[in-house]
Amino acid sequence: DPNLKIFTLNSNVQLAEEIAHVVGVELGKCSVTRFSDGEVQINIEESIRGCDVYVVQATSSPVNERLMELLIMIDALKRASAKTINIVMPYYGYARQDRKARAREPITAKLVANLIETAGATRVITLDLHAPQIQGFFDIPIDHLMGVPILADYFKTKKFNDDIVIVSPDHGGVTRARKMADRLKAPIAIIDKRRPRPNVAEVMNIVGNIEGKIAILIDDIIDTAGTITLAANALIENGAREVYACCTHPVLSGPAIERIENSKIKELVVTNSIALPEEKKIDKVVELSVAPLLGEAIIRVHENQSVSTLFD
Amino acid sequence: DPNLKIFTLNSNVQLAEEIAHVVGVELGKCSVTRFSDGEVQINIEESIRGCDVYVVQATSSPVNERLMELLIMIDALKRASAKTINIVMPYYGYARQDRKARAREPITAKLVANLIETAGATRVITLDLHAPQIQGFFDIPIDHLMGVPILADYFKTKKFNDDIVIVSPDHGGVTRARKMADRLKAPIAIIDKRRPRPNVAEVMNIVGNIEGKIAILIDDIIDTAGTITLAANALIENGAREVYACCTHPVLSGPAIERIENSKIKELVVTNSIALPEEKKIDKVVELSVAPLLGEAIIRVHENQSVSTLFD
Ligand SMILES: Nc1ncnc2c1ncn2[C@@H]1O[C@H](COP(=O)(O)O)[C@@H](O)[C@H]1O
Ligand SMILES: Nc1ncnc2c1ncn2[C@@H]1O[C@H](COP(=O)(O)O)[C@@H](O)[C@H]1O
Repeated sequence: DPNLKIFTLNSNVQLAEEIAHVVGVELGKCSVTRFSDGEVQINIEESIRGCDVYVVQATSSPVNERLMELLIMIDALKRASAKTINIVMPYYGYARQDRKARAREPITAKLVANLIETAGATRVITLDLHAPQIQGFFDIPIDHLMGVPILADYFKTKKFNDDIVIVSPDHGGVTRARKMADRLKAPIAIIDKRRPRPNVAEVMNIVGNIEGKIAILIDDIIDTAGTITLAANALIENGAREVYACCTHPVLSGPAIERIENSKIKELVVTNSIALPEEKKIDKVVELSVAPLLGEAIIRVHENQSVSTLFD
Repeated sequence: DPNLKIFTLNSNVQLAEEIAHVVGVELGKCSVTRFSDGEVQINIEESIRGCDVYVVQATSSPVNERLMELLIMIDALKRASAKTINIVMPYYGYARQDRKARAREPITAKLVANLIETAGATRVITLDLHAPQIQGFFDIPIDHLMGVPILADYFKTKKFNDDIVIVSPDHGGVTRARKMADRLKAPIAIIDKRRPRPNVAEVMNIVGNIEGKIAILIDDIIDTAGTITLAANALIENGAREVYACCTHPVLSGPAIERIENSKIKELVVTNSIALPEEKKIDKVVELSVAPLLGEAIIRVHENQSVSTLFD
């Protein structure tokens, strides 16, 4: 369909190329650069009048640059008479600022939703939002895809058999661990962190049986990797045979890579929702592609078919 | 008035302190930092419920960081029940992208206006917009102040007498040069650039009498300083005695400082609408403060008085 166009901004060019390949089109021609003073300069180099346009951009680090590129691109597409402007966001930055946890905090995840709508997007396709409630921050349709099946399929190829247990590193992630466990027909366990008194070190209590098992830790985001590496070490100390870790979004900021390198984690399995720079592609890190998932989602959206069966 | 609060973000902390001093208040307590992954973290550390809040932030380089800090701050203030949220923007980034000059360009200056309104600002106080039409991009009140009186007052102290001519470096700036000339009771001249044929160097023709005079070049923004330094050299070659240059907004990106250093410009007079980093504070650069102007504007806005007499 010549009316289906996919453009990429600067966050995940390789992923966007893979997605275009899955969909069976070439990436649209555009350049996204900077003026001398750092302002974003966008040139869309082909007509998109009357087209259904898909823009691939994760708002990963540097998040403010990526977000402004996205908003300015949406503005340009709108003014160039695109029929629909569909934002493919493999990673939604600022998702953790999704509520006022303390007085006078912003709710930046909602602000970002408002900004994307104000700029003129007509649909968002995204992956593993930190909180599914962020869907409700939008008044335009949002397709919320899941990374669990991709991660689960990878572990299936390892043929671990009955020896595995899926571990949530905190209370908030139990639902995700349960989904993973269903796919791998495995039991779950939970790391139950507790601070007995203020200013006393946290106690890592493990709820569930991990003795002699291969533990697979799962989270949505791994950022500084503090939680996940402490959890991995606690699992080994408490009798787990081996520890794998996986997540959809490898933010991996600050000390993350060093911590993972020095931890008991045997392998860290992630997706390419956030492009890894070379220095983060250490031996322990396995990268899985979300291009088949996002590409198929684009095809289905474009043909008005349900996307929910993609991860049910 | 305890209901008047001024906060600063990270672009012009020193200017904000000067403004607060002019207004006679202390700056509000807040911290604007970054999480490990680069996301903006804002903590407003005092109640602002029911207050008239003024936020000082220029969207100068790094423009996307400064703009997102501003939007997130507005969001936080709105949710913390500020009565009014007044944005004091000494410099309005993206102002040059104010129209579609080519097909499929964004109009980022309008996008930025929409983003500021969507976040929840109730008023904007700004200085020398690249195009005054940008006022119409807002549906909230906007107070548009001018830097010309500040620049003119500085040149008055030099007591150049009848020897001066105010020069616009291009056709777009003639109105500004005229305003400056009125204040200094001086004639004007215009640099009339023309490209005789494509791929042939531009010809710098000077309209007006500059022979033996002290020429004062005036522009709103000096960015890479290409135009202004070529103009200065052309003025000297055509018989001007000395050349001064001035502008409200010293963007000074890329080769700007080197060009100015190597040019025939004797002094470059700018305002602190954009904070100059140390390496740009060369001997030739004179910095004037807009704090008295912006402070007085805040006082008048807060007391429902006209601000237009500030620069009439
Ligand atoms: N980029 C970030 N890095 C670290 N913490 C964040 C970030 N954004 C928001 N937060 C904080 O993380 C908490 C929410 O995380 P969670 O409890 O896992 O949903 C809130 O207290 C936020 O203030
Ligand atoms: N940050 C920037 N640096 C240099 N040129 C820009 C910038 N933003 C916009 N422009 C271009 O500058 C032109 C407008 O400048 P002007 O003709 O002086 O109003 C347009 O062609 C814009 O595409």
